[in-house]
Amino acid sequence: MNLSKSVVYTVRVEFGDCDPARIVWFPNFFRWIDAASRHFFVECGVPPWHETEKSMGVIGTPLVDTHAKFVKTASYGDTLQVHTSIAEWRGKSFVQRYVVKRGEDVIMECDEVRIFAARREGDTPGIRAVDIPEAIRRLCE
Amino acid sequence: MNLSKSVVYTVRVEFGDCDPARIVWFPNFFRWIDAASRHFFVECGVPPWHETEKSMGVIGTPLVDTHAKFVKTASYGDTLQVHTSIAEWRGKSFVQRYVVKRGEDVIMECDEVRIFAARREGDTPGIRAVDIPEAIRRLCE
Amino acid sequence: MNLSKSVVYTVRVEFGDCDPARIVWFPNFFRWIDAASRHFFVECGVPPWHETEKSMGVIGTPLVDTHAKFVKTASYGDTLQVHTSIAEWRGKSFVQRYVVKRGEDVIMECDEVRIFAARREGDTPGIRAVDIPEAIRRLCE
Amino acid sequence: MNLSKSVVYTVRVEFGDCDPARIVWFPNFFRWIDAASRHFFVECGVPPWHETEKSMGVIGTPLVDTHAKFVKTASYGDTLQVHTSIAEWRGKSFVQRYVVKRGEDVIMECDEVRIFAARREGDTPGIRAVDIPEAIRRLCE
Repeated sequence: MNLSKSVVYTVRVEFGDCDPARIVWFPNFFRWIDAASRHFFVECGVPPWHETEKSMGVIGTPLVDTHAKFVKTASYGDTLQVHTSIAEWRGKSFVQRYVVKRGEDVIMECDEVRIFAARREGDTPGIRAVDIPEAIRRLCE
Repeated sequence: MNLSKSVVYTVRVEFGDCDPARIVWFPNFFRWIDAASRHFFVECGVPPWHETEKSMGVIGTPLVDTHAKFVKTASYGDTLQVHTSIAEWRGKSFVQRYVVKRGEDVIMECDEVRIFAARREGDTPGIRAVDIPEAIRRLCE
Repeated sequence: MNLSKSVVYTVRVEFGDCDPARIVWFPNFFRWIDAASRHFFVECGVPPWHETEKSMGVIGTPLVDTHAKFVKTASYGDTLQVHTSIAEWRGKSFVQRYVVKRGEDVIMECDEVRIFAARREGDTPGIRAVDIPEAIRRLCE
Repeated sequence: MNLSKSVVYTVRVEFGDCDPARIVWFPNFFRWIDAASRHFFVECGVPPWHETEKSMGVIGTPLVDTHAKFVKTASYGDTLQVHTSIAEWRGKSFVQRYVVKRGEDVIMECDEVRIFAARREGDTPGIRAVDIPEAIRRLCE
């Protein structure tokens, strides 16, 4: 049972995304996953974070935990599809799930725990978790 | 029991490593961890991959699986220490463990499964896992 | 007079492309320009570099010189168009020209001098310039 | 005549900084130069931008124009030194100069025009140039 919409984010793999072994340098997968995460919320109708900061104090959805499996390699010239959904809503966090595919081939899978964050004021720059905004959750279901 | 050496890789967090929430954009942690991974082997006396490619066919240690926990945030101006070790040797893979600290504070923890890879020849660019080279393993213990 | 085709490469600006000032962190423009450079050749029918390496020894088109003007800022949520052309062919180099626009607004302009490079063998990894391959030049005009 | 201090920023070139041609992928040079730019101000005693934002409204020193020459290639395992100085102070901008060396070898040279920026309020996120703060200029001379 999938409790959320599923949204696809498309990625073109570029020469500069690849390392001397001529395959995607793995931190770039996390770059694309982070873009897919935000793209998911945008497609669900959630405003950009600088607007939600004003309206509800939410500055973004930073990571708490991530677990990724790298199944096949990819290289430049490939087009990848990042299939994104919310696998679970918790009290102050949620699990966002990604399957990165090249057509039918699974390239990488990733489960992330993210929070909705507000700016923590004080001497040290920081952030704090807030309850999952109902308005945002409803948009994603 | 720690079966391997522990090596520290030092990181200066830069302005451009931070996102509009003014904290480290998380894919950069994986950039540093990947550098710490190679730095570990270099400190143990393993030659650069373009030399091991010639001597034993090994082109690098790509990721198979990674699991990371983000404990505290970091921002530009911070200096981080990435403590790196090998937590486990398996047949064709190994677990590389990272604790990213800012002095005494733990910022992030990560366990990776990596393989030693050789180039796979053929029509499609690719890589394949090889047995863990004994010469490399001995250098790391 | 424009001596070459003009090709457009489209970029979505992501959250992680922006810095704490909430504008695109400028090295990302060069990432996009580099992708636009290769995209230009691909659109003109030039094969990927790992194929040209086999067929004519060309491993890519590294930069010799770049001059960029940053006219307006961009931020996440923007869609940018990188208009790419060859402004001049020289003996062993060429000038590749980029205009990055957001609709009608010019965001950034860049003129690059690039060469066609082959791998230089020897003790030190390196590259060397080769004459502009006629076959490639014809495809771009 | 050099009107400013000269400050050195040290860079270790990592595997992931290199592309399939096994040389530094050039946008990384701009990443290092941007870090060297801020490092220069830090070494001169200028506070971090999130402090100057509060004290004088300055959020950073975005680029207006950059001109770089790539002289020699670098690869992973190299240690580079970025020699940074201010070549010229103008009314609302300044020229920051970089020479990236590997020991005695010049790898890359770059002249940048940068401004001191304040946040521009309004519907669209943006920045605007301010007069060069005298307090900052004095620290750099």
